[in-house]
Amino acid sequence: MSEGRLIVLSGPSGCGKGTMIEQILKDGGYMVSVSATTRAPRSGETDGVNYHFLSREDFEQRIAENGLLEYAEYCGNFYGTPRREVEAALAGGKNVILEIEVQGALQVKERFPAAVLIFTIPPSIDELRRRLHKRGTETEDVIEKRVARALDELPIAKQYDYIILNDALEDAVHDFFTVMRAESLRADKVNLNF
Amino acid sequence: MSEGRLIVLSGPSGCGKGTMIEQILKDGGYMVSVSATTRAPRSGETDGVNYHFLSREDFEQRIAENGLLEYAEYCGNFYGTPRREVEAALAGGKNVILEIEVQGALQVKERFPAAVLIFTIPPSIDELRRRLHKRGTETEDVIEKRVARALDELPIAKQYDYIILNDALEDAVHDFFTVMRAESLRADKVNLNF
Repeated sequence: MSEGRLIVLSGPSGCGKGTMIEQILKDGGYMVSVSATTRAPRSGETDGVNYHFLSREDFEQRIAENGLLEYAEYCGNFYGTPRREVEAALAGGKNVILEIEVQGALQVKERFPAAVLIFTIPPSIDELRRRLHKRGTETEDVIEKRVARALDELPIAKQYDYIILNDALEDAVHDFFTVMRAESLRADKVNLNF
Repeated sequence: MSEGRLIVLSGPSGCGKGTMIEQILKDGGYMVSVSATTRAPRSGETDGVNYHFLSREDFEQRIAENGLLEYAEYCGNFYGTPRREVEAALAGGKNVILEIEVQGALQVKERFPAAVLIFTIPPSIDELRRRLHKRGTETEDVIEKRVARALDELPIAKQYDYIILNDALEDAVHDFFTVMRAESLRADKVNLNF
């Protein structure tokens, strides 16, 4: 069995990463990594499903033990990817998706050059604003902060491997699998034992 | 209109590059470059269609004028790709396929880092031998030379961008378009003007 691929999926919140991942997981060859965080669980969130909820002390120990593939501090809380779980899944032939922020993504690229970094973009800033409003979970103020952050992060998207426009969900998911198929055909990945 | 992509397609003779290209050209966005050569036309070959047939003197002048994207000497004859035709087609938004040997391919990669280099391989050496026999145009001796050459060139395939297995033609053609779609999603190719 060949090793799975590590995949990073980033993009502004409100551009549909969650629904894309739901579709992708229908393919049994993929799984999504559960992040660790020091932020408090929100109502309805389950430890080990939405996040691994850790104390700040535990999180710092994980950092010290090199137990995280990447981590970042965001709004006063740590977020990171547990190394052992991901490495075990890759060794088992699964493709592992990390839904992480740009800071973490660039750490992953540096440490795992074979990782595939995908940045999803909305059709326009107006459409992003519309989707955030439609979701109805954030205040106007938070929405504008997210929009400003999206614009800030766009130049970093150029450091990713691929950019997928998420206009129609099915097209975006199709592009995701297209990228993964093409990646499997890259010359350094193909076995040439005749 | 965005500029077309330069595509190199190489692979052992007998592994179906010609039939792949026939299928690809059904997509009007692609064209194949007509090579220049100093070898004599074979019966049925037309100047400007199969090759641009040039005298050795004319060919050497093209080299001196930097009029060739790449060239190589093979079995005592020159083969090369006229630069002007290809550049005009790319500027016109066409994707241009060069069906060339490995020496020329590596020259193209050096001069046009944005070129997409694809190496096609047969399912096995036995299958390659079988296809060459089936074609019935070469003697046993020539077939064995081609097989030996294919084995020699395999390590060079690793310097290409992609390797496509040509077992069933339709799958190989599908993989070709998959690679081209994924290439269009590469972060340095996507326009991020919001």
